[in-house]
Amino acid sequence: MLHEMIKIGIVGGTGYTGVELLRILATHPRATLTAITSRTEAGTPVAGMFPNLRGKVDLEFSDREKARLDECDVVFFATPHGVAMAHAQALVEAGVKVIDLAADFRLQDIAQWTKWYKVEHSARELLAESVYGLPEMYRDQIKTARVVGNPGCYATAVQLGFLPLIEAGIVDPAHLVADAKSGVSGAGRKAELGIMFSEVSDNFRAYGVAGHRHHPEMIQGLAKVAGGPINLVFVPHLTPAIRGIHATLYAWLTRDVDVQSLYEERFADEPFVDVMPSGSHPDTRSVRGVNTCRIAVHRPDGGDLVVVLAIIDNMVKGASGQAVQNMNLMFGLEETMGLDHVALMP
Amino acid sequence: MLHEMIKIGIVGGTGYTGVELLRILATHPRATLTAITSRTEAGTPVAGMFPNLRGKVDLEFSDREKARLDECDVVFFATPHGVAMAHAQALVEAGVKVIDLAADFRLQDIAQWTKWYKVEHSARELLAESVYGLPEMYRDQIKTARVVGNPGCYATAVQLGFLPLIEAGIVDPAHLVADAKSGVSGAGRKAELGIMFSEVSDNFRAYGVAGHRHHPEMIQGLAKVAGGPINLVFVPHLTPAIRGIHATLYAWLTRDVDVQSLYEERFADEPFVDVMPSGSHPDTRSVRGVNTCRIAVHRPDGGDLVVVLAIIDNMVKGASGQAVQNMNLMFGLEETMGLDHVALMP
Amino acid sequence: MLHEMIKIGIVGGTGYTGVELLRILATHPRATLTAITSRTEAGTPVAGMFPNLRGKVDLEFSDREKARLDECDVVFFATPHGVAMAHAQALVEAGVKVIDLAADFRLQDIAQWTKWYKVEHSARELLAESVYGLPEMYRDQIKTARVVGNPGCYATAVQLGFLPLIEAGIVDPAHLVADAKSGVSGAGRKAELGIMFSEVSDNFRAYGVAGHRHHPEMIQGLAKVAGGPINLVFVPHLTPAIRGIHATLYAWLTRDVDVQSLYEERFADEPFVDVMPSGSHPDTRSVRGVNTCRIAVHRPDGGDLVVVLAIIDNMVKGASGQAVQNMNLMFGLEETMGLDHVALMP
Amino acid sequence: MLHEMIKIGIVGGTGYTGVELLRILATHPRATLTAITSRTEAGTPVAGMFPNLRGKVDLEFSDREKARLDECDVVFFATPHGVAMAHAQALVEAGVKVIDLAADFRLQDIAQWTKWYKVEHSARELLAESVYGLPEMYRDQIKTARVVGNPGCYATAVQLGFLPLIEAGIVDPAHLVADAKSGVSGAGRKAELGIMFSEVSDNFRAYGVAGHRHHPEMIQGLAKVAGGPINLVFVPHLTPAIRGIHATLYAWLTRDVDVQSLYEERFADEPFVDVMPSGSHPDTRSVRGVNTCRIAVHRPDGGDLVVVLAIIDNMVKGASGQAVQNMNLMFGLEETMGLDHVALMP
Repeated sequence: MLHEMIKIGIVGGTGYTGVELLRILATHPRATLTAITSRTEAGTPVAGMFPNLRGKVDLEFSDREKARLDECDVVFFATPHGVAMAHAQALVEAGVKVIDLAADFRLQDIAQWTKWYKVEHSARELLAESVYGLPEMYRDQIKTARVVGNPGCYATAVQLGFLPLIEAGIVDPAHLVADAKSGVSGAGRKAELGIMFSEVSDNFRAYGVAGHRHHPEMIQGLAKVAGGPINLVFVPHLTPAIRGIHATLYAWLTRDVDVQSLYEERFADEPFVDVMPSGSHPDTRSVRGVNTCRIAVHRPDGGDLVVVLAIIDNMVKGASGQAVQNMNLMFGLEETMGLDHVALMP
Repeated sequence: MLHEMIKIGIVGGTGYTGVELLRILATHPRATLTAITSRTEAGTPVAGMFPNLRGKVDLEFSDREKARLDECDVVFFATPHGVAMAHAQALVEAGVKVIDLAADFRLQDIAQWTKWYKVEHSARELLAESVYGLPEMYRDQIKTARVVGNPGCYATAVQLGFLPLIEAGIVDPAHLVADAKSGVSGAGRKAELGIMFSEVSDNFRAYGVAGHRHHPEMIQGLAKVAGGPINLVFVPHLTPAIRGIHATLYAWLTRDVDVQSLYEERFADEPFVDVMPSGSHPDTRSVRGVNTCRIAVHRPDGGDLVVVLAIIDNMVKGASGQAVQNMNLMFGLEETMGLDHVALMP
Repeated sequence: MLHEMIKIGIVGGTGYTGVELLRILATHPRATLTAITSRTEAGTPVAGMFPNLRGKVDLEFSDREKARLDECDVVFFATPHGVAMAHAQALVEAGVKVIDLAADFRLQDIAQWTKWYKVEHSARELLAESVYGLPEMYRDQIKTARVVGNPGCYATAVQLGFLPLIEAGIVDPAHLVADAKSGVSGAGRKAELGIMFSEVSDNFRAYGVAGHRHHPEMIQGLAKVAGGPINLVFVPHLTPAIRGIHATLYAWLTRDVDVQSLYEERFADEPFVDVMPSGSHPDTRSVRGVNTCRIAVHRPDGGDLVVVLAIIDNMVKGASGQAVQNMNLMFGLEETMGLDHVALMP
Repeated sequence: MLHEMIKIGIVGGTGYTGVELLRILATHPRATLTAITSRTEAGTPVAGMFPNLRGKVDLEFSDREKARLDECDVVFFATPHGVAMAHAQALVEAGVKVIDLAADFRLQDIAQWTKWYKVEHSARELLAESVYGLPEMYRDQIKTARVVGNPGCYATAVQLGFLPLIEAGIVDPAHLVADAKSGVSGAGRKAELGIMFSEVSDNFRAYGVAGHRHHPEMIQGLAKVAGGPINLVFVPHLTPAIRGIHATLYAWLTRDVDVQSLYEERFADEPFVDVMPSGSHPDTRSVRGVNTCRIAVHRPDGGDLVVVLAIIDNMVKGASGQAVQNMNLMFGLEETMGLDHVALMP
C-alpha cells in the first residue's frame, strides 16, 4: 500500500530553523515540500541560498500570497514571533495544521506574553486551544492539536532536565538553578555585531542575566508540574560553537532518592531522551544534527545536591527536529519517522 | 523480494574513519555490521567510546582473531598503513572483498611506496590486481575488484579538481599548483601535540612543504591521464576546522576552451561531483558529512590561468563515504545507496 | 639610580605556564631571565620551541642540575605537582625565594592534599610557612613570604568572585553554586585525546562533577573568610576557546544589601580587579593576555539571589601573571610592574 | 631630558583598526591620545565600547567637527575608503601629518583607483606626493612624508614575501601565484551575514577569485621593483581564525640561487621581518598581536620552484602596527618604539 504524502508549507524559510526543517524534511519518507515562502527572496531557488541543499531540494522561495498555503496539510512558521499568530486562524479554518517554531503559542499567560514580546496577542482563542509542543510532557494533546507552539531551545533542555525531579516532588522549589550554555546558531541567521565570528570566537560570556524570554516558558511548564510556584534562576551563556545547548541544573533533594533510576524510569519509553550511565558527562557534539536530548545525573559526594547535565542540538530537538516530531504525532505517523540520523563525530 | 544483506567487518574501528564508517553504515539499507575489531578496546561497546552511536550501533569491539572476518562479505581496513597488506591475502582467498582506507593499495610503484612509507610491501601480487578506488576514474574496474585501495583525502580533491583539464590535454603540465587546506580531523584520532586545540585553534599554517605522502598518489593518477610526466606542486595547510578539504588549483591553459562547460560535461553523470555555477566559491561546510565533491571553475579576467576550487569532506568523500561508494559498486548496489545525507548547515 | 635586576630561574619551562612566564618576564623592567630548565629539552633554544619568543628570549633550556638555580633571586616552578616540594627547601636555604605555580603549596590540610594529589607531602614545614598567593586576600603575608603557592586558575576566579559576599557574611553558606567554564589551555600543554582540536571544537561539556582538585582550595579560602563551614558546589566545564575562565556564581542573600557598592568598595584599591557597571556581562576576551579579574554583579528582578560573573585569563591572573604579581610583592616592586598589557580585541 | 609627546588624533575609532591603534598607542612611550572621533558614538567612552581598554584609555568618542584634529601632530584615518582624501588636505595645510589606514593613498594610478573603489579621487595632488607606507620598501621616503598610505594587509604579506625574489630578478614573472588565507577580522567590525560565527566557523572558502582590491596594490609595488610587467594571480581565502594572514607564494626560478641566504640578507637589518631557518613552517599565531612578518622559504626537492610562506597579523603589521611603525619613522623616533610586544602563545 502506498502511503499518502503530507503536503508541507514553510513560512519564512531563510532562517536557520527554516533550512534545518528543509534538511530534515528532504529525506522524510512521508513529506512533500510544497511551498516555502520568503518576503525578500521570492523567486530564488532555495539551493542557491543554501548550497547544502543543491540536488536535494528543488523549490524556489515564493511570496506568501502566492504560496497556496491553505492547500497544505501542515504549515510550519519559521518566522520571528508575531507572524504565526496573524495567519494561523485562517489556516486552521482551512483545515491546515499549524506548528509555530517562534513564541506565539508558547505562553498561555497573556500578561507574560505582552511583557516579554511587547506586542498584543492577536490570536487569543487559538492560543487557548493550542498545545505546547514538548512531546515528553504533552504527547497525547499534541496528537489531536490543530496548533502547536514549538518550545524554545533553552526551555526544552531545562524542562526535560528538571522534569523527573519536579514531577517526583523531591526537590526544594526555592533553590533551582539553570546555568545554560548555547552555541551561536541559537541567535538565528541575522547580521548582528554581537554574533560576528571575531566577536564570539575565543570568547565566552553570559547574557540576559536580568531576564530571558525562555524563562517564563520554563516556569510555566515546571510550576504546573510542581503544582505550585517555583523559584528557578536561569542564566544563559554564549559559547563559541555553532550548535548545541548544555544545561547544567542544580537542585537540592528534600528526600533521599535513587535519582539515576528515577531518570531512567521516567524516560524509559522516550525515543528521544537518552539517560546516560551514572558518572557520565555528555558532549553537545554527541547530538549534533540529531533530535536526542541526552542527560546525565550526578550527586557529588552523595550529598543532597543533584546536578543534572542535559544537552540538545538547539536546531534539532531545540527547534526543527522537535517540530517534525510534533508533525509525526499530529499525523499519526511513527514518532521517530525521518528523525533517525546519527550525529556527526567528530 | 527481500534483498540479501551484506555482512561487514571493520578492522581498526577506534579511529575517525572507523567511527565514520559506522555512522554511514548504521543507516545503510543493505549493510549488517558483523564485526568491528580493536587491539586495545576488545570488549568495549562501540557506543561507549562514541556516544553519538548510542542506540544506533550495538556492537562491541572484538579481537581480530575472534572476529571471524573470513565470514564477512567485505572487510574495511580503517587502520594505519601496513595492516591491510598483512591480512588481505587470506581474506581474499576466503572470498571476502577488501577495502583499505589506508595507503597499502594506493601506489603501484613499489619504489615510491617504500620511499614514502618506509616499510617493505608484503602483498605485491595483490597490489598488482588491486584497483584505486576513485570511482570517477576507475568505476568499471572497481565493480569487479577484489581489493580496493581507497584514495587519500587530498588525493581525491586534487585529482577530481584537475581531472577535466588534464584529460582534455589543454594545460601546461610544467606549471601545476595544488594549494590545499584541510580540517584537523584529517590527522586522525590520536594524541599529538601539534593537533591539540590550543595549538591549532585561531592559527593557520602550512606543513609538509618538503613532501607529503598524498603527492605521489596524485602524480600517479594524473600523469597516467596526461599520458606523460607532470610537474605538480602540492602544499597542504592546516585550518582550524574539524572537517573539510579545500583545494585551490592553478593551471595555465595552452588552448582557449570553455572550462565551465568542460567541467559540467565531464561530471554530468557523476552522482557525487557537483559543478557549481560560474563565479561560485564553494564552502567546505556545504559538504559536511556528505559524499559530494563540489567544484567551481574560474578564469580571472578571462586570461589563460584557470583557478579550480574543489571541496570535499575529508572524512566522507575523502575516506569513509568513498569507501562505501566503492562497496556499493563492488556489490552491484545503487552507487548512492546509504549516501544520501544532507549536509548540516550551519 | 640604576635598579638592581632580579635574577630569575624557571623550572619546567616547556609547558604553557612556562612560556607565559617568559612572555611576561621578557618585557618586565626588573627581570633578568637567568635559567630555564627542562628535563627533555636541554640544549634546545627556548625560541626554537616557542617561535613567538624569537628575538625576545635568547635562553636555551638546561638541565636542572646545571642551571645553578641557587644563584637566582627567585625560582618559579612551572612543573607538575610534586616537583616544587622536592626542591624548595634547598633553594630557600640558599636564600632563593620560591613561587610554585603547581599545587604543592596550596592546601594546608595534609589529608586533603593526600586525597587529591595521591602522594605524600614531602615539605610539610615549608608548607606550614608558605603563603597562598592570592594578593587580594593575603597581600601582606606575600610580601614577606619565602615560599608562595600560586592559586589554581578556577580557585582564583571563584574566590575573588565570592569574596565580598562571604566577607560581609550576608549570604546563605548552605547554597553556594560555582558553575565555571574554562578555555582549553587550562589543561596544559600535553598530548591528550580529550583536548585535541577535533574533540573539543564545536563542542561543550562538563567534567569532574564528582570532584575537582581546585575545589578544596576554594573551600579552604572561603571557609576561612566565612569563619565556618560552607557548602559550595563547583562544576567545571570545557569551552572551545584557548584562554579564559568564566565563573558564574550563585548565592542567596540573607540580608538586603547594595551588592554593587559592596563589590566596588571591596576592590576599590585593587589594581587587578575591575568591577564593571551594574548590568554588565564581561567577555573573557576582554582580559585575554592580561592580569585583570573582571567582575559583574546581578540581582535578577531585585530578588534575594545574587549572580556574580567573574572572568580571568587562566594563563595570566589564573597562573603566570599572578605569579609575577606575587614576585613584585615579594621583592618590594610596584605590584603592577611588567603587567600593564592591554588585552587583544578582537 | 623629557621628550616631547606626540599629540595623536584618530578618525573613525570604532572599527577594529581603530581599537587596535588604541591598544598599541595606549602604551607607546611618546604618544598622547588627544582625540578619537566617531560619527555615531560621540559622547561614549571608548572603554565602554571596548572593555579591554577599561583603565587604559580614558577618552570619549567625539564629533569630528569638535575634535580639533588640526591641533594634533598626526592624524590616523581608521575609516572606510573615501574619508581620508576628503580631509587630508586641510590637515596637511595645518601642519598635521596624515596616515590613512584605508586605501585612499595606496594606488598611484587613478584609473585603477576608480576601477576598484568606484568613486572619483578628490585629492590627486596629495596622492601624488603621498608615500606608500611599507617601510621595508620606502623607509626613506616615509621619514619625510606628509601623507602616508598604509598598505593593505594582503598587500603587505604578499609584497614582503615576494620582494627578495623580484628584486633579484631571478623568477619567471609570467607565473607568480599568491594563495592567501586571512582571519575574519580582516573583514572589519561590521554586521554582515557572511562573517557571522555560524557562517564562518568550521568552514573554509575562497572569495574574490574574480578580483580583489589588494591585487592592483601588489602589482603596483612588485612591477615597479621588477622593472616591468608581472603576471601575478592572487586568491584570498577566509579561514576560521580571528587574526592572521598566511600567504603561500609560488614562483619558478630562472637562475639557481641560494634563496635562504637571499632572504636572510635582504631582511638582515629589518626589525620587523623574521626569516626563519630553512625547512620551517610559520604559524600565524606566532605573530598574534605583534608587528612581525615571519617568512620561511622552501625549494621542494631542490627544484626550480620556490615556495614562500609569509605570515603577519593582519591587524598589526597588516594595519595598525605598521601605521605606528610609519609614525615612528615620520617623527624620527626609534622605529620599534611601542611595538615590542611578545605574541600570545597559545
